[in-house]
Amino acid sequence: MQGMEKTKVGIVGLGTVGSGVARLLLDFGDRTARHAGRTLWLEQVVVRDVDKPRDCELPKGILSDDLSKITGNREITTVAHLVGGLEPARSIMIALLESGKDVITANKALLAEHGPELFDLARELGRSIAFEASVAGGIPIIANISQCLSANQIESLTAILNGTSNFILTQMEEQESDYASALDEAQRLGYAEADPTMDVGGFDAAHKLCLLAALAFGGAPNFAAAEVEGIEQIELVDIRLAHELGYRIKLIASASREAGGASVRVNPALTPLDHPLAQAGGSLNALFIEGRRIGRIYLQGPGAGAGPTAAAVAADIADVIAGASRPVFQGAAEGLSPLPPGDPQQRVGKAFLRLVVRDRPGVIAGVSEALAKAGVSIDSFLQRPVEDTGLVPIVLTTQPASEGAVRDAIDHIEALEAVVERPRMIRIARI
Amino acid sequence: MQGMEKTKVGIVGLGTVGSGVARLLLDFGDRTARHAGRTLWLEQVVVRDVDKPRDCELPKGILSDDLSKITGNREITTVAHLVGGLEPARSIMIALLESGKDVITANKALLAEHGPELFDLARELGRSIAFEASVAGGIPIIANISQCLSANQIESLTAILNGTSNFILTQMEEQESDYASALDEAQRLGYAEADPTMDVGGFDAAHKLCLLAALAFGGAPNFAAAEVEGIEQIELVDIRLAHELGYRIKLIASASREAGGASVRVNPALTPLDHPLAQAGGSLNALFIEGRRIGRIYLQGPGAGAGPTAAAVAADIADVIAGASRPVFQGAAEGLSPLPPGDPQQRVGKAFLRLVVRDRPGVIAGVSEALAKAGVSIDSFLQRPVEDTGLVPIVLTTQPASEGAVRDAIDHIEALEAVVERPRMIRIARI
Repeated sequence: MQGMEKTKVGIVGLGTVGSGVARLLLDFGDRTARHAGRTLWLEQVVVRDVDKPRDCELPKGILSDDLSKITGNREITTVAHLVGGLEPARSIMIALLESGKDVITANKALLAEHGPELFDLARELGRSIAFEASVAGGIPIIANISQCLSANQIESLTAILNGTSNFILTQMEEQESDYASALDEAQRLGYAEADPTMDVGGFDAAHKLCLLAALAFGGAPNFAAAEVEGIEQIELVDIRLAHELGYRIKLIASASREAGGASVRVNPALTPLDHPLAQAGGSLNALFIEGRRIGRIYLQGPGAGAGPTAAAVAADIADVIAGASRPVFQGAAEGLSPLPPGDPQQRVGKAFLRLVVRDRPGVIAGVSEALAKAGVSIDSFLQRPVEDTGLVPIVLTTQPASEGAVRDAIDHIEALEAVVERPRMIRIARI
Repeated sequence: MQGMEKTKVGIVGLGTVGSGVARLLLDFGDRTARHAGRTLWLEQVVVRDVDKPRDCELPKGILSDDLSKITGNREITTVAHLVGGLEPARSIMIALLESGKDVITANKALLAEHGPELFDLARELGRSIAFEASVAGGIPIIANISQCLSANQIESLTAILNGTSNFILTQMEEQESDYASALDEAQRLGYAEADPTMDVGGFDAAHKLCLLAALAFGGAPNFAAAEVEGIEQIELVDIRLAHELGYRIKLIASASREAGGASVRVNPALTPLDHPLAQAGGSLNALFIEGRRIGRIYLQGPGAGAGPTAAAVAADIADVIAGASRPVFQGAAEGLSPLPPGDPQQRVGKAFLRLVVRDRPGVIAGVSEALAKAGVSIDSFLQRPVEDTGLVPIVLTTQPASEGAVRDAIDHIEALEAVVERPRMIRIARI
């Protein structure tokens, strides 16, 4: 590395990923350097609480709680911003950009919710925001989408983007456990946080998907317009019945180009057992990119973890320094406007309905009429034996129908006297 | 696109891919331009025979059979070199580099066999050779490996890189057809050329794998050191028996880091039915990248075809123009030396052996002793009913053993009097 130019790097935030990046820079700066053509030098680390115990040993004197140690140091050109949440993450990002730094971040929530403001600011100031690490840890999804963009019109993305939810669903199926026990296990193993809402509520996947959709379809991330449904309502019985019908339930993040905008949504969906997304178990992430000329490309890998995510941050640092980072958002010259959403009521797909009815004559006919009244046709029908309670579980899948029609059908079914509770609806993935 | 700078691009070679690139530049220059920040302008196309009918309409006056129309035109900075084979492809590449052009190519044979010379020349002249399109068409494998490199030590690559062979093997299994009929069908559908040797002999996959290994492990492509075995000897009975044992036969390209070098090889291998590589059927390509920090990343997509390959060329053009293309080979500053090969005799793996014996007492004991003498243990054993001919087909799989030991065992078995022919050996993929 003799004679190589030295690039001074700062880190803000020293959690799991921040510590991983610091260790990478301290231990393996050389390899990254070969790639970037320069030596990377960890000059300064800024954290909120300097006294908190850390699982990484830093050289003396580089840890501080004063952000101006970075913003005021002109020699630091590149900063890994590894603070989670919206504030003070947003203010830190603005301060870094305004002090002339190129920024690498893994904070998808920040970019999904404040993307237009931050990317516009970066463009005005001629700075980069690189964020490969914000989506799917070690899988270079951003690089892939960016690469596909040059010559391809990307039509749709279909993905598993939240490792925690994927782990819980896999656990429920394999251990035959209910949602609460599977969540406990995920928390015990460190896959889920004490408050798991961001993960199991679908919000983390939606943040990531908003970024990917903005990249793929051109526009600014529009988290407010995303449709988000989590896995909290999934019961073991749904997983079992879906399996009998040849499906596995996954938390599917899907985005597709629509006239004038994009449909961006996260919801549990029945996925055919022989589909690669159904087979991506545990904490894996996976993604299909479908484009006009490129066909369908499939990517799969570890979705999170300090190792892969820190590696992605380091790759971004190398790219930014090598000048290989470009404005990845299309149409950036004119400023980014948020992607308008599609109309969910118009969207057509199959659905899985689970209902519980009282065992009495004519009830099947009633359900079937309720569906017909809404214009929804039945694809498959599975009636289970009468239970001791006198109740009969019924599962059916519909033929493709608009979401509006399926909602109408559910309303009609719920209104039937023999129907005990509002039918449970889970979409069938359109893949 | 008003006010955007114009970049003049040349194309040499107007076959399937060349025509696809020309059409892309003529029809969709704008989209590529947005990505590159410049307008791409197709200035000149050079072919061997200007009178040959083409399936793409070019503007008047841009087609010529004179390479100096490109090499002598200083305004053309970037050239898509889409001529196959080794010569005159090599001379054309040298002429383009020496006249100051950045070159994009899809010719893996040229780079695998003349890589050290050509990459060294490009480096000396300060020019780029971009070659995403040379491997796996639309799947941005080069970009992925390059991205993984910054912070990860890549340990191994395991892939399906030849769509033709994959199609033939899939066809044999699904249609229960023999090798010759499946090859006929592949030729009829345009998946295989009149002389299919490059594809079915494993050479095309080996060319691609050499490039990927050189990138991943650091060094120059070393095609001469690759171990290459094709699918010509695979019989339908092998496919059936493998299936009974829980495997599918695939042409697997695998490269792994070894002390002081890399093992690079292509051979048919039994792949567990539930493994993603076993499930990548038809003309798909697929790749596992395994790294120290990154874990295992899986990529899958269409392996060839004018659409995806032309798209990959266009993406490379955009990257080169945007300055986002960097010297992708590690250690380039000191010049690239070819990767030394590993020692195949030392390599340890499981094997599938199929033999035909005469139905007489003690023959199983003899086979078992022959294996024991070579130090090879049996993992599973499958004896089929005696055929009318009085012959008995036997299939066995071994426990992990060195290739040397397995060869010894095969020699010992072949020497047994009851054994009719040399046992057929197919490796079991180490995945």
